Amino acid sequence: MDKNAMKKMAAERSVDFVEDNMILGLGTGSTVTFMVEALAKRVKAENLHLTCVCTSIRTADQAKSLGIPVMALNDVDHIDLTIDGADEVDANFQGIKGGGAAHLFEKLVATTSTRNIWIVDREKVVDTIGQFPLPVEVIPFGSQQVFDRLLKEGLNPEFRTTEAGQRVLTDSQNYVIDLHLGQINHPHLLATWLSEQVGVVEHGLFLDTVNQVVVGSPEGVEILTAR
Amino acid sequence: MDKNAMKKMAAERSVDFVEDNMILGLGTGSTVTFMVEALAKRVKAENLHLTCVCTSIRTADQAKSLGIPVMALNDVDHIDLTIDGADEVDANFQGIKGGGAAHLFEKLVATTSTRNIWIVDREKVVDTIGQFPLPVEVIPFGSQQVFDRLLKEGLNPEFRTTEAGQRVLTDSQNYVIDLHLGQINHPHLLATWLSEQVGVVEHGLFLDTVNQVVVGSPEGVEILTAR
Repeated sequence: MDKNAMKKMAAERSVDFVEDNMILGLGTGSTVTFMVEALAKRVKAENLHLTCVCTSIRTADQAKSLGIPVMALNDVDHIDLTIDGADEVDANFQGIKGGGAAHLFEKLVATTSTRNIWIVDREKVVDTIGQFPLPVEVIPFGSQQVFDRLLKEGLNPEFRTTEAGQRVLTDSQNYVIDLHLGQINHPHLLATWLSEQVGVVEHGLFLDTVNQVVVGSPEGVEILTAR
Repeated sequence: MDKNAMKKMAAERSVDFVEDNMILGLGTGSTVTFMVEALAKRVKAENLHLTCVCTSIRTADQAKSLGIPVMALNDVDHIDLTIDGADEVDANFQGIKGGGAAHLFEKLVATTSTRNIWIVDREKVVDTIGQFPLPVEVIPFGSQQVFDRLLKEGLNPEFRTTEAGQRVLTDSQNYVIDLHLGQINHPHLLATWLSEQVGVVEHGLFLDTVNQVVVGSPEGVEILTAR
């Protein structure tokens, strides 16, 4: 079974958790694209009244085109449930996001949300996170100094570039430095250290954030629930 | 004696600490303007070879106009000494900066600098910091959620606005929220908490940063040195 089929399976199952009149956070990425399609079908079939907050222009455009009402994060007072993808998630429900360079907005929405569900294919579920490079969004001014500090700390930093070799810019016009760590044994310590580095806007560690992970695999959909 | 005379006195004394061939960080603000003028005089009189890194376009323009060579922070591998102003500094050498909304770039330069000197008039030296509102630079996306979290925490937040009522934008196109605290009894705890809030780019607490404070007062210049 190919990855897309597993993603789609998880995405379609996740919209079962959506209830009428919810304020819903919508993530970003290929799995989320499947989810928004499935959500639009439910909205139409059941005439659901939803308000959605999106973590990227891409998701907002898709939601609007399918007739789902979209509001800005600044204009809602809470979010009931956010459904998003993830790049890695471990057995303790700690994860890495930011492969799409949208982790800052995704974390802002996730933090505002009462519940968070991640939708992933089986390959994203790992024993220890860190195989996936950890994205760190940094202010361009002085970013070389931040890079040097990450290097000295042994964190294997690399500026993310486009195929044309230009530095990737986030929606907030910042750079992304990917940390090639192999494995992250102490995610909370690393998260605190990164947060305190001047010039770091946000890292891609999402700790104690997700409540349920919907996993698509050749054997079907599995739902993992955090304690 | 008026404030400007005290600022000028401190500014002129501070350039005595500059040595030939230094890479020098230059802060931002009215006191720094006096300092750059005094620095330019020394450079000319003694034919000093300096490289300067500036924390704002304003300071860079002034330095260049006075013939002082300027480099970008990303293009130097270290800074020997940074001279900057401060909005408040206490007896433990902990301070608040950001009244000019430049504290992010100022902190990036200060962090890169081996030594930091602040130049202030006597009124900036206080027993406990916090009378001056603590600036917090935040990402516009979701800034209302950050504001609400600061409010719930009892931190008396207020979006900084221009006289025309528009929200102030920093050089990185972010908003500034000022925290009206009266006094800050546990600056390290507050700094760590603020750093970990999603959406906060940088706060104006400069802790364990400054090595010497040059204070201008009607009685003359006093130099305070941190242990």
